[in-house]
Amino acid sequence: MAHLILKMIGYKSLSIQLKARKLTMNKKNSIYIATSLDGFIADKNGGIAWLDSIAIPENEDMGYLAFMEDIDALVMGRVTFETVLGFDVVWPYTKPVFVLSNTLKEIPESHQGKAYLVKGTLPVILEQIHQKGYKRLYIDGGTTIQSFLKKDLIDEMIITTFPILLGGGTSLFADLPKAMDFELVESKVYFDHLLQHHFRRKREN
Amino acid sequence: MAHLILKMIGYKSLSIQLKARKLTMNKKNSIYIATSLDGFIADKNGGIAWLDSIAIPENEDMGYLAFMEDIDALVMGRVTFETVLGFDVVWPYTKPVFVLSNTLKEIPESHQGKAYLVKGTLPVILEQIHQKGYKRLYIDGGTTIQSFLKKDLIDEMIITTFPILLGGGTSLFADLPKAMDFELVESKVYFDHLLQHHFRRKREN
Repeated sequence: MAHLILKMIGYKSLSIQLKARKLTMNKKNSIYIATSLDGFIADKNGGIAWLDSIAIPENEDMGYLAFMEDIDALVMGRVTFETVLGFDVVWPYTKPVFVLSNTLKEIPESHQGKAYLVKGTLPVILEQIHQKGYKRLYIDGGTTIQSFLKKDLIDEMIITTFPILLGGGTSLFADLPKAMDFELVESKVYFDHLLQHHFRRKREN
Repeated sequence: MAHLILKMIGYKSLSIQLKARKLTMNKKNSIYIATSLDGFIADKNGGIAWLDSIAIPENEDMGYLAFMEDIDALVMGRVTFETVLGFDVVWPYTKPVFVLSNTLKEIPESHQGKAYLVKGTLPVILEQIHQKGYKRLYIDGGTTIQSFLKKDLIDEMIITTFPILLGGGTSLFADLPKAMDFELVESKVYFDHLLQHHFRRKREN
């Protein structure tokens, strides 16, 4: 069996990149998220302390900054937005954040000009965001990602997998009306332990 | 960021093997199984036709024969046993198969000497099998794998992931009483599309 074995000798990451599959779409909806081996984005108590189970060097972002550079705006649900607001940090985004909510009345004054409330069905919301000139979107938050997937509106997924079975929690994926094929764009191993896979939706034309 | 990019140029598979993490245990319980990206081993109708979604050359077994060489016996549930019996093929195993069942009265005459009925709790069953000299066991079948995982009795997992979201079906993993850490032993890409990861249970000593 012809295969190539690479030994880890001081590399921070090793990558298998597959042909010229990088996405060059004008409009795209992407996710960039970490999960456990059993597909959870938060543990049984909603916690993410397991993300600290692997020591990640401070200067290593696992492609996050490059990914953020490549997108025009973020789209997230109210729960994720309020979670980020609750973090005791400066606002972490330099791109506009569109907050999906049918209950939130308005964006807090502190974050006006950074975050924008959007309402309606996903196609209507996307049309509004695209018309503002934001085409390459980072879709974030468990519920929002699942809503987009249900409508087959996710074009690429960059998923970092931690080698841990949490045994319960908040799932990244949920029931879908139909199966969906993806293509593998790249497979990486970071720090000997973390897997990062880049998938692209394979649509029949 | 120092990473190595490998272009696929006619390789059937590319592999990242991590240090000397191959299992050299005397006794071990292993799984070798294929799942969808969302962690299903069978689709909503119990089907596995999605395993044919990627064209796999006839002479390529993705490490299966080497894995089978390395084990002493199989342990599977009654449902999996009866599913294999129902296939219109010759008995596919050259190693003894231990069938877990509390309802099955006896192994059909056609398969006596190849398959053996075992009953009781997992530790009792394992003790019996070990005493017969079979130490390296291939644990197969969804329910059986989940029972072993619940008792933290799985030592290594070789999981082949197909880049498809099935959106429902039979999950490989189920609820666990506690989180479990694994180590990555090897990460492979087969035929440009299939991921195969080899994990080893990381236990605190």
